[in-house]
Amino acid sequence: MKLISAQEVEKHNKKEDCWVIIHGKVYDLTAFLPEHPGGQNVILKQAGKDATAAFDQIHPRDIIDQYLSPEVCLGSVDPATVVQTVKVETEEEKLRRKVNEKKPSLIEMLNAYDFEAVASQVLTAEAWAYYSSGSDDEITLRENQNAFHRIWLRPRVMIDVTNVDMSTKLLGYDSSFPVYISATALGKLGHPEGEVVLTRAANTQKIVQMLPTLASCSLGEMTNARGKDQIQFFQLYVNRDRAVTERVVRSAEEKGCKALFITVDAPQLGKREKDMRVKFIADPPDIQDEKSVRRNLGAAYAISAFIDTALNWNDLEWFKSITSMPILLKGIQTAEDAVLAARHGCAGIVVSNHGGRQLDFGRSGIEILPEVVHALKNAGYEGKLEIYVDGGVRRGSDIFKAIALGAKAVGIGRPSLYAMSAYGQPGVERLLQLLKDELEMTMRLAGAKSLADIRPEMVDIRNLHDHVFTPKNYLMSNVYDRLTPRKAKL
Amino acid sequence: MKLISAQEVEKHNKKEDCWVIIHGKVYDLTAFLPEHPGGQNVILKQAGKDATAAFDQIHPRDIIDQYLSPEVCLGSVDPATVVQTVKVETEEEKLRRKVNEKKPSLIEMLNAYDFEAVASQVLTAEAWAYYSSGSDDEITLRENQNAFHRIWLRPRVMIDVTNVDMSTKLLGYDSSFPVYISATALGKLGHPEGEVVLTRAANTQKIVQMLPTLASCSLGEMTNARGKDQIQFFQLYVNRDRAVTERVVRSAEEKGCKALFITVDAPQLGKREKDMRVKFIADPPDIQDEKSVRRNLGAAYAISAFIDTALNWNDLEWFKSITSMPILLKGIQTAEDAVLAARHGCAGIVVSNHGGRQLDFGRSGIEILPEVVHALKNAGYEGKLEIYVDGGVRRGSDIFKAIALGAKAVGIGRPSLYAMSAYGQPGVERLLQLLKDELEMTMRLAGAKSLADIRPEMVDIRNLHDHVFTPKNYLMSNVYDRLTPRKAKL
Amino acid sequence: MKLISAQEVEKHNKKEDCWVIIHGKVYDLTAFLPEHPGGQNVILKQAGKDATAAFDQIHPRDIIDQYLSPEVCLGSVDPATVVQTVKVETEEEKLRRKVNEKKPSLIEMLNAYDFEAVASQVLTAEAWAYYSSGSDDEITLRENQNAFHRIWLRPRVMIDVTNVDMSTKLLGYDSSFPVYISATALGKLGHPEGEVVLTRAANTQKIVQMLPTLASCSLGEMTNARGKDQIQFFQLYVNRDRAVTERVVRSAEEKGCKALFITVDAPQLGKREKDMRVKFIADPPDIQDEKSVRRNLGAAYAISAFIDTALNWNDLEWFKSITSMPILLKGIQTAEDAVLAARHGCAGIVVSNHGGRQLDFGRSGIEILPEVVHALKNAGYEGKLEIYVDGGVRRGSDIFKAIALGAKAVGIGRPSLYAMSAYGQPGVERLLQLLKDELEMTMRLAGAKSLADIRPEMVDIRNLHDHVFTPKNYLMSNVYDRLTPRKAKL
Amino acid sequence: MKLISAQEVEKHNKKEDCWVIIHGKVYDLTAFLPEHPGGQNVILKQAGKDATAAFDQIHPRDIIDQYLSPEVCLGSVDPATVVQTVKVETEEEKLRRKVNEKKPSLIEMLNAYDFEAVASQVLTAEAWAYYSSGSDDEITLRENQNAFHRIWLRPRVMIDVTNVDMSTKLLGYDSSFPVYISATALGKLGHPEGEVVLTRAANTQKIVQMLPTLASCSLGEMTNARGKDQIQFFQLYVNRDRAVTERVVRSAEEKGCKALFITVDAPQLGKREKDMRVKFIADPPDIQDEKSVRRNLGAAYAISAFIDTALNWNDLEWFKSITSMPILLKGIQTAEDAVLAARHGCAGIVVSNHGGRQLDFGRSGIEILPEVVHALKNAGYEGKLEIYVDGGVRRGSDIFKAIALGAKAVGIGRPSLYAMSAYGQPGVERLLQLLKDELEMTMRLAGAKSLADIRPEMVDIRNLHDHVFTPKNYLMSNVYDRLTPRKAKL
Repeated sequence: MKLISAQEVEKHNKKEDCWVIIHGKVYDLTAFLPEHPGGQNVILKQAGKDATAAFDQIHPRDIIDQYLSPEVCLGSVDPATVVQTVKVETEEEKLRRKVNEKKPSLIEMLNAYDFEAVASQVLTAEAWAYYSSGSDDEITLRENQNAFHRIWLRPRVMIDVTNVDMSTKLLGYDSSFPVYISATALGKLGHPEGEVVLTRAANTQKIVQMLPTLASCSLGEMTNARGKDQIQFFQLYVNRDRAVTERVVRSAEEKGCKALFITVDAPQLGKREKDMRVKFIADPPDIQDEKSVRRNLGAAYAISAFIDTALNWNDLEWFKSITSMPILLKGIQTAEDAVLAARHGCAGIVVSNHGGRQLDFGRSGIEILPEVVHALKNAGYEGKLEIYVDGGVRRGSDIFKAIALGAKAVGIGRPSLYAMSAYGQPGVERLLQLLKDELEMTMRLAGAKSLADIRPEMVDIRNLHDHVFTPKNYLMSNVYDRLTPRKAKL
Repeated sequence: MKLISAQEVEKHNKKEDCWVIIHGKVYDLTAFLPEHPGGQNVILKQAGKDATAAFDQIHPRDIIDQYLSPEVCLGSVDPATVVQTVKVETEEEKLRRKVNEKKPSLIEMLNAYDFEAVASQVLTAEAWAYYSSGSDDEITLRENQNAFHRIWLRPRVMIDVTNVDMSTKLLGYDSSFPVYISATALGKLGHPEGEVVLTRAANTQKIVQMLPTLASCSLGEMTNARGKDQIQFFQLYVNRDRAVTERVVRSAEEKGCKALFITVDAPQLGKREKDMRVKFIADPPDIQDEKSVRRNLGAAYAISAFIDTALNWNDLEWFKSITSMPILLKGIQTAEDAVLAARHGCAGIVVSNHGGRQLDFGRSGIEILPEVVHALKNAGYEGKLEIYVDGGVRRGSDIFKAIALGAKAVGIGRPSLYAMSAYGQPGVERLLQLLKDELEMTMRLAGAKSLADIRPEMVDIRNLHDHVFTPKNYLMSNVYDRLTPRKAKL
Repeated sequence: MKLISAQEVEKHNKKEDCWVIIHGKVYDLTAFLPEHPGGQNVILKQAGKDATAAFDQIHPRDIIDQYLSPEVCLGSVDPATVVQTVKVETEEEKLRRKVNEKKPSLIEMLNAYDFEAVASQVLTAEAWAYYSSGSDDEITLRENQNAFHRIWLRPRVMIDVTNVDMSTKLLGYDSSFPVYISATALGKLGHPEGEVVLTRAANTQKIVQMLPTLASCSLGEMTNARGKDQIQFFQLYVNRDRAVTERVVRSAEEKGCKALFITVDAPQLGKREKDMRVKFIADPPDIQDEKSVRRNLGAAYAISAFIDTALNWNDLEWFKSITSMPILLKGIQTAEDAVLAARHGCAGIVVSNHGGRQLDFGRSGIEILPEVVHALKNAGYEGKLEIYVDGGVRRGSDIFKAIALGAKAVGIGRPSLYAMSAYGQPGVERLLQLLKDELEMTMRLAGAKSLADIRPEMVDIRNLHDHVFTPKNYLMSNVYDRLTPRKAKL
Repeated sequence: MKLISAQEVEKHNKKEDCWVIIHGKVYDLTAFLPEHPGGQNVILKQAGKDATAAFDQIHPRDIIDQYLSPEVCLGSVDPATVVQTVKVETEEEKLRRKVNEKKPSLIEMLNAYDFEAVASQVLTAEAWAYYSSGSDDEITLRENQNAFHRIWLRPRVMIDVTNVDMSTKLLGYDSSFPVYISATALGKLGHPEGEVVLTRAANTQKIVQMLPTLASCSLGEMTNARGKDQIQFFQLYVNRDRAVTERVVRSAEEKGCKALFITVDAPQLGKREKDMRVKFIADPPDIQDEKSVRRNLGAAYAISAFIDTALNWNDLEWFKSITSMPILLKGIQTAEDAVLAARHGCAGIVVSNHGGRQLDFGRSGIEILPEVVHALKNAGYEGKLEIYVDGGVRRGSDIFKAIALGAKAVGIGRPSLYAMSAYGQPGVERLLQLLKDELEMTMRLAGAKSLADIRPEMVDIRNLHDHVFTPKNYLMSNVYDRLTPRKAKL
């Protein structure tokens, strides 16, 4: 491969002539610029420079080979010509370093919120915004947790609960307790190794991991990290280009994924304003260029432009034709669609609003769950497909509530990202252990010796549908000018 | 026209002898003083001086010709005698200038609240108080937004939503999406050009503008600013003097307005205490003069004294006799009155509480909407008249909810004033674009390809009528003295 | 009368020998000490001194003649022997003086809350505690206002509301609007002239005043202050000593009171802890003396020890035998008792919880009103007795709501005390005028031309009985230790 | 007994060789270390030292004799060899000493919250955490009080309430009012004399005390402290070792306890994170030792490891065979279990969630009460067994509400601990007197002359089951990042 000097690369530093170095190779991205899903500016900031660090935070390593033609690679950068720059620590980096030095020891983490608190300190502003944000006023984001708070427990006593069995089977595969790690994007924003950290923790804790389409590790990296007997499912964003979709699905099956979860709640990504605002600070858009403005919408937008808006029920036959994995739909939010999924032969559904990141004012999964269970039963599908739920699970008692209402298992998204970001694999393992301990305690105190003992009458859901105390709209309350009575000013 | 020296004008600076200069002309307002709707003090502060700036903020330019007899104009001020005073910047003006320099760029405005936040900084205290205030304890003002928060969405998935069509027809006229700019008074408090700024933005965004009776631009200025194919409706406050009313209505029709929206919720203007308090600070009333005290009630009172308190259902026949424009009633708040409007042959209604500025504890338009739709259907008027709603719309999802509940379109009042005040015409255009984008996203994520696809079952309104979490009464909580337990004071 | 030197009085300054000077006369209170309803300490602090100022704040002038035998008066103090002490202004007095200098002008008072805010500044700590306090956790105190907030309005439009008539008749007597000044104790804590200030304001505003048993003015002072055609009712605390009760009732009738309102909700006075705490600060009790401790329970306790706990339905016949005034019961809180009142021939009732000063968690009058109206109708008493309501009225719209639900009029207690304390008679007059203006506005905006037009369907009371958002228990929240997540401490 | 020098003891200061001095005796705890319910670290910190102070705070004096074999006692420490160490006051101790000096006088304590406020100041961090904490998010902890706030009163008037009789009989034994002191653990954390302080106060106030299994006084100390005619019940945690259980139960009966309350809601102790966090600060666990980590879970865990998780309905026959005391179950939380308790011949139940310390999101006792009463009546057990309730009682009106809903009496736990910690026996007596006074006032104001007069229709429980305003999750709200609108930064 041809050797190119770093000084030569530096000359190609503009829109009309744009080279970058990634992992030691030199690429001419001039033609690719307008097609970059993340917008031109992100690349232009790296024009003429080594873009490896920025690239790695977002992209799996094999993405260049998959999406760019070989001829854009001009050769290798000549190592002898590379000037090592001394990196000066910024104020933000200094703060984060101090946090890392002073963060509590792992055993002091007592619950899922503790991990979130530490993660908010150790993550970069961009990563925190991407992980933590919800859409619009973040009403649904918070409602996901609030809805669990409207469910109360009816514990039974005087039952021998010496042995509590939390194990279950998901699509026939063993799980140590009814929790799986749900698919979340851009793991390397939180940890340099990305999603494989979650893979390893899921393995030791003996639970299923759902692999994300938008991982920052490649699919191969994630499946290679899989332990013996470990089970992985695959989450799919359907690409407009069905050839790409087919390639991805076949690849997942070949690499040993056991089920296909098609995301159906994201024909367009939601409006996550925290994410967008951070983007504006880090990377001021080119005001002259309206297109660039519209694209510069945060990490979420950058990675999602390829998603197929035309996906519909008729497509399910085609999916069945390209894979033998069971097909499940992730993002069902009504009884009607649950029944349709059953009619179209799906193996299951995930009742979910995408962690409050898509349609604001969508109801929480846990609220929708009883409606879905009831409708499926009425339509004759009881026990015919598996029902999962995600969104807002933070305590073992939340898992208990979901099981009582008919869920097979619950998905955990943000909590595992936060635990990973704060403490790596041991963090995720401790998080899962805490949830396990909490579920065990809840079952013991409620008189349930196995998941089958967790019955609907153990939860009081009279207020589950009562949305009279909506999460506060902080934008609205911030702009409201409060009345004050007139009195003497002293 | 006779030339009068500024020094001569200065001598006539008291109640019994009061001249002012407006746009270079000298007026003797001594006789008019007690009849000025805004009270004597406002004029007396300008006695003997050039009142142009103060006049322009409130009044359309043609108002003097309309309401005063020609003989009060004594002549023109002699330009040679006018001493240019060097205006010293006040602290408030300095602050506002700085805000204008440092306000975010327009593309950083991501939602309607952002515009309100910037407007609260750039507006004068008087303008902010007039625009933002509601009546009494501002319960209804805030309930208008809260009510939308009690409506949740039931999105459908697996529908091809590549193309989303938001267009509609209002009274037969095209609108790019189901939003119109509602009538609001005193636009020049927010922008030196006043309501024509809204006209121009409505034109580029292809939506209807409803022209206000109490505009600070003249009717002619607003209709002249109209674009090709642009549609304008006219909002009417009925004047006690029906000859004036007839002149205004005929003029609106002649100048091309396509519909007449008669405001029916304001026989008396509401008690807007923020507005009144600012007035007291800016313009301490003459304590000796009880009448002046009662009149000195803020901008709202100043402009409304002419409104006809006797307006009633029998008047509708007369309105039909003087105009061929379709007649709609703005401010309907019960099913009963909606049916009466239908019986009296109205072409439509606006379900509205006047932006929370009239009767406090009036319910929100969005809450009343289902009751009105139901009653009209029961009375056989389904589809016979168009139903609009306004109050509290801040997000695309709010528009979606209104359409789902049977509205033809929603009116936007304060948000467009705030956007105009903060960024002029581009601000209003961006606001409308953001709402359009949000509505499109909501429709796409809810599985609605056109407005007709937005069906009632897509919204969950079980809690819409639950007023158990009323907006906080800040006056009450401010005067309440909280209990504290007794403990050691260290 | 015998002259006694001040120096002689000074020697009698202990429990066993206790003289005081009141209005120039010398009294030997040694024997009376243990019987003083307000406890011994209050008197002992004045032993040997001139107690006039302390006496006047609590007692009507004629109380000594009524309750003490003539021989305790030993003579007059010799004026020549009285040393004028230079009173040094305390910090608290200095602050209150400044407040009085800087308080807003009366016309800046825009609502009832403004008066309360100024009153909280101008009143002594003792007076503020006595006036503002409620019982226990002050839940009912605040619920009284909150309950009105759960009632929403259904205004009608297109009605000629040029003339709005608010006048009514209470027990056959004219009232300019459906409000009366309710009985409240210890007026001189707020204003040196006491309750006659309210008498005069009620007169100019043409409304009824209800005279309190526990006034700091004598009954004669209050009836003498009555204007021509002015109407006064009399509120009665029944004394254990029925001879006293009879004397008081006959006196009220003789002095021209037109109705007797017997308080039935106070066999024991409520536990008003703010009042009790202030007492502890101002007047530390004698720890040795348990009886003194129990008595030292604030102003409320001090004045109420005489109230008859045995009062019951059988007593009504006796009351009818001693007066020809119509008899009404003040403090009815259930439908059952309303019907009993009707059966026992009462002319009316006041639905009331005593301003939240008696039984905490008693429901608000406005909530009880529909239950009472319904029960009376069912029992055949519709229109047979007049129903009043008090508690929490702060806005004209509150009055409107009470009328819509069947009240004849509403009583105003604390607001008039606050207005009187802050601005004297003109304050009370302005308060009443504001309420009148607000009621007029509410009626006009709701389409009601007279009180008879205010119909039940104009109010939406679906949530009136929903107590799910109870006033915050500040004691409870103050002692609760909030959980915080563990994170790095920097 | 052999004399051992303190210097000799000091040498045995490690895991493999661990001696401690307790009350002058020397124990070799090497073999016992891994079996200590409170974990090894607590003991190891004292290895080679005098552990008396630490021991006394947690343990009753006779526990060593009960649980350790005699041979671990090696002899007595030689007093001549003991070096008196000068104790230096820590900052925390200094603060607590100051609080004790400046705390309000007892008569200034006006309600239960006042005692809690003072207790939060005088207790050590460990004691405060142990007493005040609840499980998980402390939702149920606070709901216990909130639920009472959703019950409103319907007082009757015009009843002779001169004499109010609050006395009742619990299981046939006299009680001055319907309150008993419930069993709580570790009294010496709050007061050096421990639970006997409560015994003495209960005696003077003529109420029943329920003695705790986990007392820091020995059972004999508590029963010996009993007054003439005083009644004590016994609360039992069932030990895995039924021989121990039998010994304890027989001992309680022999020592004169009149009833056996078996705790059924604690097969595992709840997760009380405040308690756990304090433990981490005071006593950092050995990170190498995972077992030690799991054990180091706060005071609650330390004392509870022996509790039998296998306890079930079949065990009741055995209990009846070993005691003639009536058997009651403490911790019933459903109608179903109440009926089962009746069927199994229990003499009564305590409707309770263990003070919010066990299953978070368990409903409050007061909410469960009507469901239980209704079910027992339907099953034919009305009046057949006594129903008690505890959790959240802070006011006399709370007691009134419980009686109205069918409780025989209410248990008081934390409030008596707080009163004891702050002021010792007089504190507990005053607390009980205040509750008595409040109940008397509530009864008088509600028209109830005896407990039998407190009828269900006197309480309005329409909202009792409405959990729409859940106690705030402070962990969740702490980690949530609030949205703010974009505006100019000045």
